[in-house]
Amino acid sequence: MRILGIDPGLNVTGWGVIEVEGDRCLHVHHGVLRTKPSEPLAARLVALRDGVRAIAAEWAAEAAAIESSFVGNNARSALLLGHARAAAMLGLADGGCGVTEYAPALVKQTVAGYGRGEKSQVAEMVRIQLALRQVPTPADAADALAVAITHWAHARIGARLA
Amino acid sequence: MRILGIDPGLNVTGWGVIEVEGDRCLHVHHGVLRTKPSEPLAARLVALRDGVRAIAAEWAAEAAAIESSFVGNNARSALLLGHARAAAMLGLADGGCGVTEYAPALVKQTVAGYGRGEKSQVAEMVRIQLALRQVPTPADAADALAVAITHWAHARIGARLA
Repeated sequence: MRILGIDPGLNVTGWGVIEVEGDRCLHVHHGVLRTKPSEPLAARLVALRDGVRAIAAEWAAEAAAIESSFVGNNARSALLLGHARAAAMLGLADGGCGVTEYAPALVKQTVAGYGRGEKSQVAEMVRIQLALRQVPTPADAADALAVAITHWAHARIGARLA
Repeated sequence: MRILGIDPGLNVTGWGVIEVEGDRCLHVHHGVLRTKPSEPLAARLVALRDGVRAIAAEWAAEAAAIESSFVGNNARSALLLGHARAAAMLGLADGGCGVTEYAPALVKQTVAGYGRGEKSQVAEMVRIQLALRQVPTPADAADALAVAITHWAHARIGARLA
């Protein structure tokens, strides 16, 4: 099964695809989508939504995962992130991917072992988990892979409990 | 020309359509779209986006207007509003409507004469402007009509200056 992780942002949206093979998960691909700050907001949202939908189709993602909420207390940043998250979720829905949300602390805890892992530590643990030679870059793509790994880990725990 | 005003919200999105005839604007219709809090977020965003697109098509809107930003400093509320705004803007984009954004204070100033008009005062001025017998309800629909009137007023000023 292919899992697509998304780390949404209006300027830069990270994405990462992993493949679940039995008890392991393998790296497939990762990257970022960018929208032009010079363009009207509606056009940027269309570009982001259509870009996510195209990635889901291109990499044959069967499930998708996204962080559930905003960390911080800046209302203006939260408003913009809300726009980007919605555009990404609509792209996934249009692509036929079910979306599961994970709290940021749970993603860090799952990938780096505890809830307050530094950004660089999360990226290093993603590198080790996926047996990559180098830390995946940019950071938004590493974060997206971390969310995908979180989905895999929790689906695996759920299957074992079932 | 038909103008569709939108007052977005995840639970309740107000909408209002006005028709511009020469130097006047006439009331066409207004209402609200609701999404079910019991449904997953992605499904609610799809419902809101598709609902806005359907309204734009049904009422043959040629232009759309929406408030530009969040008033307040609650990051959680801003995040949710961002989701709803993006879904509405994507519905308008899919429906072929250009979207113009107006700051909330400008909407109040245009409709009620100054920037800090009470909600009830805005609704009453919408009633008078559109020659309605009663104040449009619910309040979200009155706010949507106020944004549509703002677009009409500013387009008219722009045309006179040109």
